[in-house]
Amino acid sequence: MSDEKYFQNITLRERAIFEGAITMGALFHQFVGTPVSPKSVNSLEKAIEESLTLQPCIESVNVKISPQLMEEAENEYQYLSLTGEMLDVRVVSHYEGVKVVVRMHYIEELQYPLMYVEEID
Amino acid sequence: MSDEKYFQNITLRERAIFEGAITMGALFHQFVGTPVSPKSVNSLEKAIEESLTLQPCIESVNVKISPQLMEEAENEYQYLSLTGEMLDVRVVSHYEGVKVVVRMHYIEELQYPLMYVEEID
Amino acid sequence: MSDEKYFQNITLRERAIFEGAITMGALFHQFVGTPVSPKSVNSLEKAIEESLTLQPCIESVNVKISPQLMEEAENEYQYLSLTGEMLDVRVVSHYEGVKVVVRMHYIEELQYPLMYVEEID
Amino acid sequence: MSDEKYFQNITLRERAIFEGAITMGALFHQFVGTPVSPKSVNSLEKAIEESLTLQPCIESVNVKISPQLMEEAENEYQYLSLTGEMLDVRVVSHYEGVKVVVRMHYIEELQYPLMYVEEID
Repeated sequence: MSDEKYFQNITLRERAIFEGAITMGALFHQFVGTPVSPKSVNSLEKAIEESLTLQPCIESVNVKISPQLMEEAENEYQYLSLTGEMLDVRVVSHYEGVKVVVRMHYIEELQYPLMYVEEID
Repeated sequence: MSDEKYFQNITLRERAIFEGAITMGALFHQFVGTPVSPKSVNSLEKAIEESLTLQPCIESVNVKISPQLMEEAENEYQYLSLTGEMLDVRVVSHYEGVKVVVRMHYIEELQYPLMYVEEID
Repeated sequence: MSDEKYFQNITLRERAIFEGAITMGALFHQFVGTPVSPKSVNSLEKAIEESLTLQPCIESVNVKISPQLMEEAENEYQYLSLTGEMLDVRVVSHYEGVKVVVRMHYIEELQYPLMYVEEID
Repeated sequence: MSDEKYFQNITLRERAIFEGAITMGALFHQFVGTPVSPKSVNSLEKAIEESLTLQPCIESVNVKISPQLMEEAENEYQYLSLTGEMLDVRVVSHYEGVKVVVRMHYIEELQYPLMYVEEID
């Protein structure tokens, strides 16, 4: 069984963009809110990377959670809830020879963690 | 301030696809797991629609949670956790005159809630 | 079928606390990250309330999302991701005549959205 | 700074139950929906354990995702979305000498992933 018939109306390039974008939206909304501290950050980054790489057409996912923002956690309990501001992510999608890098990171002038296409064949 | 400079490398059509796809991925991973029953289904559909319509370039979001699957909930507690199988969603994105409809619904032969581009200008 | 045999080792009061606490933890981690703006806030509050009230022993859920924090959203896109800081929630659980109010709200001196038992019979 | 004044109205035992229950509710609703396969299951289990152990009064978290249920994933894409049915979790909370084990696993006769107090001092 194949899903090809559902994608006849878009180009190879558009398909690669489509799948990379789904995965970036998924990543943000699955993991924002997770408790995180300097002690747990490595396992969280790894789990996010490995789980989202499973999605269709995804070649790799690279996640960096800002150590600086985590150090600012001065509450009683020594951890924070993960936010979009703390994330710097690269999702590489690949479809029939077209490779796309979708990136998300916080952009100061937009005051927003922007998702955009960083590289495309 | 504008984000335009981050999108110079893709076409208008690709941008509309990109934003629709992000929103569909976001929707699935934000709301899967939510407790739902026939009594609460209308408010949940409405909240999903209104919250995801806020995202960049999104014109409308239409969510239908399967009443049939909910009726199958025969557990002690009379509710279910929302799954991708129960969802039928249309996200309409719009960028500079290009309109894209991204759809997600469960497809029997794939055994998977597929996300795909249903309509594009 | 009943779940009673699983709760022989705790008191009625402890059961009511247990169920209220589960629901508060669930609420936070299900909905943090949801896009929200002054336009969508009412439907989101209602959906959170109706969905979490479905859980075992929950009598009512009351959610208030801070209008002040939302007004501070000055980004390009006019919406925010829901955070624990924005939430003020009361979950009322009830088990065999014992009523418990679990509350969560941001506490300045703790720099943390604390969950605690506000009232108990 | 301490949060003690917020917990004057409950016993030590109740506090330990309260914190364990919050963490179990949080765990379920944070991670249900995450893509998972036999390849990624170890990193996901570890990230869930390390992130939830950060919460107040939590001594340890042990997560087992059912390999049997994952093997049933016969869709085109070779992965599943994590559900409550797949999870077997033990959260150990500890407050001033009182230890509580909160457990969640799917119970066939209830058709429900029940959360309950498995052990208490």
